[in-house]
Amino acid sequence: MNQLQQKSAQIVNHKAFQPTIITLILINAVIVGLESYRGLYESYGEWFVRIDTFVLIIFTLEIILKLIAAKPTVNFFKDGWNVFDFVIVLSSFIFMGSPFVTVLRILRVLRVFRTISVIPSLRKIVNALILTLPSLGTIMLLLGIMFYVFSVMGTFLFRDVAPEYFGTIEDTLLSLFQIITLESWASAIMRPIMDEIWWAWTYFVAFILSGTFIVLNLFVGVIVNNFEKVEQLENGETPEDDQLKKEVTQMRQEIRELKQIIRDERE
Amino acid sequence: MNQLQQKSAQIVNHKAFQPTIITLILINAVIVGLESYRGLYESYGEWFVRIDTFVLIIFTLEIILKLIAAKPTVNFFKDGWNVFDFVIVLSSFIFMGSPFVTVLRILRVLRVFRTISVIPSLRKIVNALILTLPSLGTIMLLLGIMFYVFSVMGTFLFRDVAPEYFGTIEDTLLSLFQIITLESWASAIMRPIMDEIWWAWTYFVAFILSGTFIVLNLFVGVIVNNFEKVEQLENGETPEDDQLKKEVTQMRQEIRELKQIIRDERE
Amino acid sequence: MNQLQQKSAQIVNHKAFQPTIITLILINAVIVGLESYRGLYESYGEWFVRIDTFVLIIFTLEIILKLIAAKPTVNFFKDGWNVFDFVIVLSSFIFMGSPFVTVLRILRVLRVFRTISVIPSLRKIVNALILTLPSLGTIMLLLGIMFYVFSVMGTFLFRDVAPEYFGTIEDTLLSLFQIITLESWASAIMRPIMDEIWWAWTYFVAFILSGTFIVLNLFVGVIVNNFEKVEQLENGETPEDDQLKKEVTQMRQEIRELKQIIRDERE
Amino acid sequence: MNQLQQKSAQIVNHKAFQPTIITLILINAVIVGLESYRGLYESYGEWFVRIDTFVLIIFTLEIILKLIAAKPTVNFFKDGWNVFDFVIVLSSFIFMGSPFVTVLRILRVLRVFRTISVIPSLRKIVNALILTLPSLGTIMLLLGIMFYVFSVMGTFLFRDVAPEYFGTIEDTLLSLFQIITLESWASAIMRPIMDEIWWAWTYFVAFILSGTFIVLNLFVGVIVNNFEKVEQLENGETPEDDQLKKEVTQMRQEIRELKQIIRDERE
Repeated sequence: MNQLQQKSAQIVNHKAFQPTIITLILINAVIVGLESYRGLYESYGEWFVRIDTFVLIIFTLEIILKLIAAKPTVNFFKDGWNVFDFVIVLSSFIFMGSPFVTVLRILRVLRVFRTISVIPSLRKIVNALILTLPSLGTIMLLLGIMFYVFSVMGTFLFRDVAPEYFGTIEDTLLSLFQIITLESWASAIMRPIMDEIWWAWTYFVAFILSGTFIVLNLFVGVIVNNFEKVEQLENGETPEDDQLKKEVTQMRQEIRELKQIIRDERE
Repeated sequence: MNQLQQKSAQIVNHKAFQPTIITLILINAVIVGLESYRGLYESYGEWFVRIDTFVLIIFTLEIILKLIAAKPTVNFFKDGWNVFDFVIVLSSFIFMGSPFVTVLRILRVLRVFRTISVIPSLRKIVNALILTLPSLGTIMLLLGIMFYVFSVMGTFLFRDVAPEYFGTIEDTLLSLFQIITLESWASAIMRPIMDEIWWAWTYFVAFILSGTFIVLNLFVGVIVNNFEKVEQLENGETPEDDQLKKEVTQMRQEIRELKQIIRDERE
Repeated sequence: MNQLQQKSAQIVNHKAFQPTIITLILINAVIVGLESYRGLYESYGEWFVRIDTFVLIIFTLEIILKLIAAKPTVNFFKDGWNVFDFVIVLSSFIFMGSPFVTVLRILRVLRVFRTISVIPSLRKIVNALILTLPSLGTIMLLLGIMFYVFSVMGTFLFRDVAPEYFGTIEDTLLSLFQIITLESWASAIMRPIMDEIWWAWTYFVAFILSGTFIVLNLFVGVIVNNFEKVEQLENGETPEDDQLKKEVTQMRQEIRELKQIIRDERE
Repeated sequence: MNQLQQKSAQIVNHKAFQPTIITLILINAVIVGLESYRGLYESYGEWFVRIDTFVLIIFTLEIILKLIAAKPTVNFFKDGWNVFDFVIVLSSFIFMGSPFVTVLRILRVLRVFRTISVIPSLRKIVNALILTLPSLGTIMLLLGIMFYVFSVMGTFLFRDVAPEYFGTIEDTLLSLFQIITLESWASAIMRPIMDEIWWAWTYFVAFILSGTFIVLNLFVGVIVNNFEKVEQLENGETPEDDQLKKEVTQMRQEIRELKQIIRDERE
């Protein structure tokens, strides 16, 4: 068993292993793209299925090898990207042969995201982007509260006048999302409502002003975050100040020695 | 009476007090959300009213306790969030039984904002956001003057051609707000007017260029503001420079002593 | 004559002078706003004219006094804001009694901008905003070249298909401005053209990508500009580093003296 | 031959050479603009052709001279801007007399971009803008993957409901570009689809949230990039810290000498 583990680790760490996987992901990406052309699918549908099965088998083997190679098997699941790969492949087996063809297709498309888990620089940048999110937690909670209050209020106020936008809380939440992207908020949503309820503008202007202000601060948060990272890196890289401090400390030491010499002399 | 105050302070500061209030705010939030579904309201309307009354009673008790617990009662009103809580609860009593059912409902929805006054981290972030506003005062005054001048001008120029957008100063102000969000400013507002007044584009382009330039500077103001805060924090946290200065000052002192020793020797 | 100049300077610098002018500007602003309500204008039109004449007389007197008070009269025109005030008032006289009632009205509205020239903090911020522009000169020239090239090209390519947007170079320039604000660029402009010219998307996507990239860099320029100003201010205010340098220089001087003392001793 | 090269270099570096070329580019720009007015073209078409031929001859001469003047001829092609000039002029000859009149016209318009290659400050800024791109490589690759996955998925899901937006992968890519600019994404694209597929909002909201988040980080990248450049410049310009370090180092040297003097004395 231990020998099997060693063998697996050897294969997984082989220099040709990763390029092979990347090539397969790219083939999968091309296949999935070509499939969307109706004419091609009708003529070569069989081939698409064959290549897809082949890719799935290799991906399954890859995960099995990685699972064996991981010292305690639990370690494999400690990396979020491994979990992502595992779920993507496992789901393909679960839905295999099921009538949910669309789900299977979406899973095959999602496999393209494996490019991120395989190429280290992409993995790093996505990890960095995801790590930005928690620091924005409080301001996103605030945005959430604001969305909830405005959606309940909007539903009460406008559900009779504009049921397509404010019929239920869910409809209103989607409309508020549309409003915060500033898409047709006035021409399609506010102005028709204002024909019935003249003071409706207060609701929209209040939402846009407070919403964009909070979103702006969210953006500023991301920027400040990034700068701090850059500054930390720079501070770590340029140890000029530390050098100066050392120099001064050593100088003080020498002066002390000097004093001692003179004192010794005097006695 | 003093004993009552102590008792109140004990309850208010009890570790179970705040979680209870948060729970009630959440229950209130859920109720207010469920109420907006017509079917639910017709079937369980009675229950909604009961829970609402219960929540209102607890909130009233909370404020009475906090009022008693505050040493001079005036202190209670020194915190803007207490005033907010007080107004929200008091208004519910004022409008109780009045025919303005919508106002009462909106008040109940606004109670959800109490989440902010109760959770410290949210309170802090909202305080920070509000504190950003005064520093933007001058630039907002400038924006105000620009809006006023363009709204009077727009009303004079286009009220006959596009009365729905430029009929009165109020209409024009709302249209200018829509234009500065860049929503349908050309397709719905400018181009129809240009069919009658070919030079109308000067007004719109001038407003958008100067408006977005000022708004951009407003945004930049917020960003600069945030950075200054961050830098102040960092400067306060890293007292490396101070340490260097102290070291140098002490070194100079030692050199003076050294000189004195040598001078003494010479005499 | 010298006495007249002194008297004028006395009035201009009197502490009640500026508040009076601000009050008149505000009255002018209110009048100009009220005039835009048709009903009010028809009933009280006469009064509006009287107040307007009164305001104009005071503004004229103000400028005459300031002109006399300025030591060499040319100095008055060295401040751009004085020139602005002068032009606004002079134009009111030039167009007086002319049939261009709209021009006169616009001039009266523009007088509201005098608030900026009168309130120092507003004056300062607008001066700062205007001073940002020259540093953005090169990038704005670049944007200009891009607009020109795309407008000539757009006119050649699409004038037959969409004459309302690309009929002449002027039309195209306005359409490009609309496109760069991202307003209805696809739904109203690109998609109808693509029904005839399928490759039209290349033109639009190229323009939006390069245009927004340049505009983004323009924005970044404004932000960087502002930060530099802030940093310069901060560097000027915190002379800690200078202090450290002085301390070190003095210390070196003392060490030299010390050496001299010892040398003297030895001889 | 060497004499010819010297003569060419003399002409190319003559102080009147560059202004002449700039003037010709401006004449070319004006001509190209005037040509787009149908009336003018019909009356003076002949003249336009003559001036155009003249400009092309001078540009050709300019490039030949520069080619000769360049020491090894290859050096000429090392500057990207020279290549740009060369391609623009060469293409005019290749398409001359061909039936692709539009291509020739576009080439003539593109010559206006030569302003950038001729004016140094513009050249510098465009070089700087282009140099920003590689540092954004990874995040643009990420954006590319996201666009591809969402385009394949969108085509599968919505091609039957909205063939004009999601018919093929190419259509979907263009629609996604439109959606990320937030233009009519809800009113024109999402809402009609939602009438058939109620859960379609998940696709759009997911795309907008992740898309704008990545684009925001792209923008932040550009800003951070710019700041770093500015800071590097500032660090290079203010050698205050270096001076302090030198001072301290020299001081330490003097203290060592001092010690040596005293030691010498003692012996």
